[in-house]
Amino acid sequence: MKRYELLAAEIAASIASGTLQPGDKLPSVRVTSSARGVSPATVFEAYYLLEARGLIRSKARSGYYVAQAVEMLAPEPDRTSRPVEEARTVAISELVLGILESAMSRDIVPFGSAFPSPLLFPLERLGRATALCAPKLDPWETVDDMAPGSAALRHQIAVRYLIDGVQIPPDRIVITNGAIEALHLCLGAVCKPGDAVLVESPCFYACLQALERFGLRAVEVATDPREGVDLDALEAAILRHRPSACWLMTNFQNPLGSSMGEDKKKALVSLVTRHRLPLIEDDVYAELYFDGRRRVPLKAFDAEGWVMHCSSFSKTLAPGYRVGWTSPGRFLRAVTYQKLTSSIATSLPAQAGIARYLERGNHEKHLRELRLTLRKQRDLYSEAIARHFPAGTKISRPAGGYFLWVEMPETVDALALHREAMALGISIAPGPMFSPSKDFRNCARINFGHPYTPRVEAALQKVGRAAIELASSG
Amino acid sequence: MKRYELLAAEIAASIASGTLQPGDKLPSVRVTSSARGVSPATVFEAYYLLEARGLIRSKARSGYYVAQAVEMLAPEPDRTSRPVEEARTVAISELVLGILESAMSRDIVPFGSAFPSPLLFPLERLGRATALCAPKLDPWETVDDMAPGSAALRHQIAVRYLIDGVQIPPDRIVITNGAIEALHLCLGAVCKPGDAVLVESPCFYACLQALERFGLRAVEVATDPREGVDLDALEAAILRHRPSACWLMTNFQNPLGSSMGEDKKKALVSLVTRHRLPLIEDDVYAELYFDGRRRVPLKAFDAEGWVMHCSSFSKTLAPGYRVGWTSPGRFLRAVTYQKLTSSIATSLPAQAGIARYLERGNHEKHLRELRLTLRKQRDLYSEAIARHFPAGTKISRPAGGYFLWVEMPETVDALALHREAMALGISIAPGPMFSPSKDFRNCARINFGHPYTPRVEAALQKVGRAAIELASSG
Repeated sequence: MKRYELLAAEIAASIASGTLQPGDKLPSVRVTSSARGVSPATVFEAYYLLEARGLIRSKARSGYYVAQAVEMLAPEPDRTSRPVEEARTVAISELVLGILESAMSRDIVPFGSAFPSPLLFPLERLGRATALCAPKLDPWETVDDMAPGSAALRHQIAVRYLIDGVQIPPDRIVITNGAIEALHLCLGAVCKPGDAVLVESPCFYACLQALERFGLRAVEVATDPREGVDLDALEAAILRHRPSACWLMTNFQNPLGSSMGEDKKKALVSLVTRHRLPLIEDDVYAELYFDGRRRVPLKAFDAEGWVMHCSSFSKTLAPGYRVGWTSPGRFLRAVTYQKLTSSIATSLPAQAGIARYLERGNHEKHLRELRLTLRKQRDLYSEAIARHFPAGTKISRPAGGYFLWVEMPETVDALALHREAMALGISIAPGPMFSPSKDFRNCARINFGHPYTPRVEAALQKVGRAAIELASSG
Repeated sequence: MKRYELLAAEIAASIASGTLQPGDKLPSVRVTSSARGVSPATVFEAYYLLEARGLIRSKARSGYYVAQAVEMLAPEPDRTSRPVEEARTVAISELVLGILESAMSRDIVPFGSAFPSPLLFPLERLGRATALCAPKLDPWETVDDMAPGSAALRHQIAVRYLIDGVQIPPDRIVITNGAIEALHLCLGAVCKPGDAVLVESPCFYACLQALERFGLRAVEVATDPREGVDLDALEAAILRHRPSACWLMTNFQNPLGSSMGEDKKKALVSLVTRHRLPLIEDDVYAELYFDGRRRVPLKAFDAEGWVMHCSSFSKTLAPGYRVGWTSPGRFLRAVTYQKLTSSIATSLPAQAGIARYLERGNHEKHLRELRLTLRKQRDLYSEAIARHFPAGTKISRPAGGYFLWVEMPETVDALALHREAMALGISIAPGPMFSPSKDFRNCARINFGHPYTPRVEAALQKVGRAAIELASSG
C-alpha cells in the first residue's frame, strides 16, 4: 500500500466507525499534512481517492466533508445472476428498437441513452485538427492502408496500449467504424450461423443484437454485479455448449458497471486459452475511471492471441467520428477480411483528424476533466435516485463509465416504468433489454453522462415517483 | 430522334457500309455544319456521341478520324450465361481473399482492382470543403440524425435523385459507410440465415461475400452480357426457390458492364412487385456513363417500395471518405435498425464535407471530366487487349463504369493466368471470383480506371502473352 492509500484507509475506517460523521468537515490539507508528517500531495491524493469512492465530497472554496448518509447507504446490487443455462436463439430486436426509437429525440430526458452528453467532448478542437489534415490527405492512402486503416492512427493507438504496458504493434490493429463494427467483425470472423456464444447476464443489448443479426445462439453466464462474469460458470458453459466465442466487458461493464481485478483477468485469459475459445473483449469504457487507477485490458495478459480486444474513441473523444479499432490477436487475417468485405475501410478524414489530435498530446488533459465530470455526475445522480426511488432500491457504484444499474423492488416492472417515463418525456433503459431471456424485469440502466441540471433532478424525481407507485400497486 | 442523333446515325451508317474507312478523317465541324445546315453545336454533339460509341476518335489539334478496325472489331461477349439452377451455400471467401491480398500493393499493376485511380478525384478540393465544416460541427448532430445520417447530405442526395426524375424525400434515405454497408444492411433487413437470394451470373464478388457472411444461399440467374439479368429466368427462379431477396445491378453491371433499357427496368420492377420480392439495387456506377445518357435506377419505377436502392460517392467523388446511402423503400425502418445495430452512424466530418462540396455545385464539371477520362481509357485498354490477347478473345464494350469483361478462348484458365500475372507484378480479377459455382473459368475482369501509361501497355502485353501460352498449351 502506498502512503496516500494508507492515509485514505485510516480516514475511511474513521468514517465507518462513526468517529467522523456525515457532514463533518475534514481537516485542511495543510493541517493534515503537518499532523501526519506527509507531503500535501499525499494528502491530496488520499482525499481524491476517498472522493472517488464516494466517502467524502469537496465543496468549492470550502474543503472536504464526509458524504451524506444517503450517498453512502444506498446499497449496491450484490446478487450474482443465475440465468437459465440454455443456448437460445436471440429475438431482442423489436424490444430494443421500440425502446431506442421512442427515446431518439433531443427533447427526451436521456436516462435511457447509450451515449453521454455530446458537449463533454472537444469537438471543435478535434475539428481543427481534422481541418488541418483534410486538404492534404494522400490519395494513395485509400489504396495502401485500405482495410487495416491509417498507419498514423494505428501508431497512436499502439502508443496508447503501451501506456498500459500492452505491446501491440500497429500492424496487429484494424481501424473500424466505432467499436460496434469491431465487435461485429470479430464475431463474424469466428462464428457461423447457429453457433453458441457466451455472454454476461445481464449484457449490453448491442451484443444481443449482433447475435441475432448473425443467427447465433446466446448462452447467458452468471455474472456478479461488482466483479463481472463468474469464471466457474463460464468454464461449465464452455464444456456444456462448446461455444464459438465469448463476448464480455471486464472494465465498467455495460450495464452493471462491474470490473474485474487483475488476478481475475489473468485467470480468465488462461481459462479461454486452455479451451482455445476466442474471447471478444468490449473495452470502450476503460479510460473513464474515477479512482485514479488505469485499467488494463484482458489483452494485456493474452500471450497466445485468443483475446480480440475492441475499443473506440467514441466514448472518450469523438462521438460522431465513428472511429474504433480492434486488436484481434490470432484472428487478424479473418477480421481484416471481414472488414474488407463489409465496409472496405474507415473514413479517412476522421482517422487523420484523430491521429493528428492525439499527436498533439492534449488528450490526457481532456480525459482528466472528463473523468472528474463523470464522477461528480455519478454521485449527484446516485444521491437523487437514492432519495427518490422506492425504498429497497439498490444502486451500483461503478468506478468508471457513465451508467448506473438500478435494482428496484421485485414488484416494479421496468418495462411498465419505461412506458410511464416515456409519457413524461423521459427515457430509461429497462432491464429486459439486457438479456436474451428478457430477465432483470425490476432493473433499469440510468445514464449519468449528461449534466446534472434541475431538469434532470426533476426527471429523476418523476421516474422515482412512478416507480414507487408501481412498487405499491405491483 | 434529335437532330444530332440523326446526323450521328447517318455517319455511323457510312462507316458500317465502308463509305468511310478506318483512319479516314471526318470533315471539320465548320464544313459539316454549313454542308448540312445545322449548328456547329449539333455537329459537336453528333461527333461526341460517335466517339462515345467508339466509332470515331479525336486527335489533339487535328480533328476526328474513323476508329481503327481493331477497336471496332473485337467482338463483345454475347452468350447469356446458363448457370445451374440450384440454391447453393456460398464458400467464396478464401478464393477472393487470396486474390485480393495478393494484389494489395501500390507496386502491382492493378487490373484486378475494384477501384479506379485515386488521382481521378478532387480529393484536395473536397478536403477544403471538409476543413471548412470540421471545426463547426454541431455536437447535437450526433444525437439528432444518428442512424439516418446528416440532414444536409440527405437533402443533397434527394436533389441528385430529382435530376433523374426520382422523387425521394430526405427522410427516406439512410447514409451508410459506402455502398457496401448499404448493401449489407439491406440484406440483413430482409434475410435470415439459410434464405435463398437471387444473384446475377456472373455477379460482383462482394455480393457473394455478403451472402457467405450472413449464411445465405445463392441462386444464380441467367444473365445477358449486354442487357443484364434474364427476366424469364428470374421469374422461374422466384417461383422455384422462394427467395428472400434479389441483388443486382442494372447500370454498368460489375463485372459485365451490362445495362438494362428503361422498358426492361420497368418490367423488372413490376415483376418483383408482383412477387413481393425485395430487390437490392447496387447502383454505384450509374453516373459514370460515356454516351451522354443519364441512367435512371430501378427505383425510378418503384411505386410500391420493393426496391432498395444503394449507391455511394466512392466511385464518383470521394474514395476513402466511405460515404454511401440507401433508399430502401418499404424496408426503411428495418434498414435503419440494421444501421443502428451494426455501426450506429456514419462518420460526421465526411458527411459534412461531401454535403458542403455538393452545395457548391462544382460536382457536375468534375463528373464530366471523369467520364471523358474513363471513356478514353476504356478505348485504349480495349485496343491493347484486342491487340495482345489470344485470337478469339471477346471484350465487353461498356457504356460506363471502369471494367472490361474479357472472355478468352475456352482453353485459357483465368486462375492460372492470375497466378502467372501475379508473378509478373500484375493483378487481374479472374472469372471464378464472380460466381458461387466458380464458373467463368476463361474470363477475367480488367480495370481500366487507371491512366493508360507505357507501364500499363506493357503489362497488358505481358498478360496477353501469358494468356496466349495458356491457350495453346490448354
